[in-house]
Amino acid sequence: MVTDLLPAKNGEEYTMQFLLEVVDILTNYVRKTFDRSTKVLDFHHPHQLLEGMEGFSLELCDQPESLEQILVDCRDTLKYGVRTGHPRFFNQLSSGLDIIGLAGEWLTSTANTNMFTYEIAPVFVLMEQLTLKKMREIIGWPNGEGDGIFSPGGAISNMYSVMVARYKHYPEVKIKGMTAAPRLVLFTSEHSHYSIKKASATTSPTVYGAFDPINEIADICEKYSMWLHVDGAWGGGLLMSRKHRHKLNGIERANSVTWNPHKMMGVPLQCSAILVREKGLLQGCNSMCAGYLFQPDKQYDVTYDTGDKAIQCGRHVDIFKFWLMWKSKGTIGFEKHIDRCLELSEYLYHKIKNREGYEMVFEGKPQHTNVCFWYIPPSLRLLPDGEEKRQRLHRVAPKIKAMMMECGTTMVGYQPQGDKVNFFRMVISNPAVTRSDIDFLIDEIERLGQDL
Amino acid sequence: MVTDLLPAKNGEEYTMQFLLEVVDILTNYVRKTFDRSTKVLDFHHPHQLLEGMEGFSLELCDQPESLEQILVDCRDTLKYGVRTGHPRFFNQLSSGLDIIGLAGEWLTSTANTNMFTYEIAPVFVLMEQLTLKKMREIIGWPNGEGDGIFSPGGAISNMYSVMVARYKHYPEVKIKGMTAAPRLVLFTSEHSHYSIKKASATTSPTVYGAFDPINEIADICEKYSMWLHVDGAWGGGLLMSRKHRHKLNGIERANSVTWNPHKMMGVPLQCSAILVREKGLLQGCNSMCAGYLFQPDKQYDVTYDTGDKAIQCGRHVDIFKFWLMWKSKGTIGFEKHIDRCLELSEYLYHKIKNREGYEMVFEGKPQHTNVCFWYIPPSLRLLPDGEEKRQRLHRVAPKIKAMMMECGTTMVGYQPQGDKVNFFRMVISNPAVTRSDIDFLIDEIERLGQDL
Repeated sequence: MVTDLLPAKNGEEYTMQFLLEVVDILTNYVRKTFDRSTKVLDFHHPHQLLEGMEGFSLELCDQPESLEQILVDCRDTLKYGVRTGHPRFFNQLSSGLDIIGLAGEWLTSTANTNMFTYEIAPVFVLMEQLTLKKMREIIGWPNGEGDGIFSPGGAISNMYSVMVARYKHYPEVKIKGMTAAPRLVLFTSEHSHYSIKKASATTSPTVYGAFDPINEIADICEKYSMWLHVDGAWGGGLLMSRKHRHKLNGIERANSVTWNPHKMMGVPLQCSAILVREKGLLQGCNSMCAGYLFQPDKQYDVTYDTGDKAIQCGRHVDIFKFWLMWKSKGTIGFEKHIDRCLELSEYLYHKIKNREGYEMVFEGKPQHTNVCFWYIPPSLRLLPDGEEKRQRLHRVAPKIKAMMMECGTTMVGYQPQGDKVNFFRMVISNPAVTRSDIDFLIDEIERLGQDL
Repeated sequence: MVTDLLPAKNGEEYTMQFLLEVVDILTNYVRKTFDRSTKVLDFHHPHQLLEGMEGFSLELCDQPESLEQILVDCRDTLKYGVRTGHPRFFNQLSSGLDIIGLAGEWLTSTANTNMFTYEIAPVFVLMEQLTLKKMREIIGWPNGEGDGIFSPGGAISNMYSVMVARYKHYPEVKIKGMTAAPRLVLFTSEHSHYSIKKASATTSPTVYGAFDPINEIADICEKYSMWLHVDGAWGGGLLMSRKHRHKLNGIERANSVTWNPHKMMGVPLQCSAILVREKGLLQGCNSMCAGYLFQPDKQYDVTYDTGDKAIQCGRHVDIFKFWLMWKSKGTIGFEKHIDRCLELSEYLYHKIKNREGYEMVFEGKPQHTNVCFWYIPPSLRLLPDGEEKRQRLHRVAPKIKAMMMECGTTMVGYQPQGDKVNFFRMVISNPAVTRSDIDFLIDEIERLGQDL
């Protein structure tokens, strides 16, 4: 192979050959990700990777590298990364690797376009519109009426809700600034996602996976004319399940909803929607009428241009992978996926609730896939309750987690919360997970933690 | 092929086969994109696509589709889309299709991870850090010191600058809200990007591609202790060129800079950086210390966790494609790309400046690749200057553009600006463009516009 300083400027065949060699690296990576004899990660400290592993340097240079070296760089980037699609990766709300979703992402990046106008993204703009309508129907808004947009993640979606609520009550803020409004107040649960604080409303607290009683909150909001935002970034997926959607009863009374298909529904990152019950608010709140982008005198119906609704200018195409997965699974496919993940969580709950050395962080069956628990090593089991036990227990989860990462066998999250010392938070959103993977996790916690 | 309701839950071989069939569709698409006998687009109105083209329905159903149908959906999505990588697509600041960048995006979506912690994105987090440092060195900040982050586009990057500036001058706003600050003022050019208005400062106005005198503005900002933000979303790319970077002289005096590699540097969407001269401000401004995500008691150096700097929680991996392109081209490859695009713009300028039927929107050689001009059809050339001529000229560009899109031969943007009626704005960022493509555009404008 020769290196051209402007690769692929004319789609030369050697660059296509290069692309196929990358595909070969990627498909091998995918195959191994689903193979449980493969490690979840090959951990290195920052200074180790910065010093440069053999043949892999992160430094950028003035001169070009050969395409052979670029292939090595691709292999090494994957080698030192984390396999978030591995059936034993439980570390985040987003996990798994759906092949249809992946194909959708590859097509999206090949199309390399931008959502702001129908003119340059006709198909994607319509897919977004139809999918948002479907999501609003599932929320329960009459005929799926309302508005919405895909944004770069739940935090930005929540920020939209705050901006739209402010615009609804004090539209003059848009022109006159914050001094045009009285001091505004935002009520949220103690356990809400931290983006809510940044954006100044949560319905399935991020750590515990419990659901707030939406109907009771909606009663209060209606009484005092308050905007009700439901942050269903993580919980929204349960709307797809006839068995579990009752946990979100009352969501149809919300003024706005955040719902991230990239979490519970297994869609590749990023895919987050903000849905608004009243039509026109997004446009009213965010439009700036930039004539050089959104010309009113085009030959097509320019109400399909979405750019003026967004706080962004350019906007990544997040819809296609989701639309393609929906086509391929059908609504019932998502339902099966959700039901299965919740069954597995219930399996974990029953497995450990009376098991020696485990303590649940809160009582009762999990409402979502979140199972929060302490593992108490034998050396702590006989200690009397008190500050010493608390302090020692606080150090257990981080130690086990560090060993897991060094071994590369599995990953699960931990955190403290309020007055509770570090506990494990198990979450399941990957359809590749089986009961044997849950068993493996518990065995591994005990193997690594028994001598602590 | 059979359809599984949970595709690829275990990396089954038939799903890998499906993925390779998608790759075949995509590589054929790429080959045709660089073939000038292929149309730029196959235009349809929204209602036509919504009614459903033969075999292609956008509607989502309860039941799954077969994988064969999914392949048809992929082909049709591309068929009815716009080829933004086509050498005759001049419609946006982002154009072209770099194969190394594309390979980078495919790898990124295969890795499917999230930038918020080193824990789950060790390699990408370090690549981001090193690349941001390199960008700060190129801006001219001593030793590349400072801070920065990749964000989902220039509008969000500009929003960061406003938030960081406010935090620097009124840190109490973070805790107490906007009532803790006096009324704040933001000065910007009349021709700045509209996101600047949404985020409440521009250096290469988006339409004209002219550069503000940064040194003179910096003098004023220093005198009055004002925050200087340079929006180099579009113009920043010129920093890579020894020949053209003088147009941004003084940028090293800015407090913050927006720079979008996804525009002039040909990196696939999305890739936008906000760079801040003073270290610690991003973290100070945005940190919420969410213990369940950013645990301080991990086994590695947690200063590498980036999540607490971002206004987002989850954050897409935008760095890898850019890093890989930089590796493959070297700094000198980006320089050649920039120089070449500016040469082509100069070629266009010289071609039309004295050509019959053309009028430039402003005097002098273009400073960037933006060339703004009116095409005046023969029927208008003899009309006296006045309101009638203005009104008729205003309708010319939209008509030509609409015909271009119907023919599918090329695309170029137009807009009015201030008291100026609709004019064409030609921009070049695709390295596949040649002089013959510029000639083609001019021929096409004349072919379509001569009888208007």
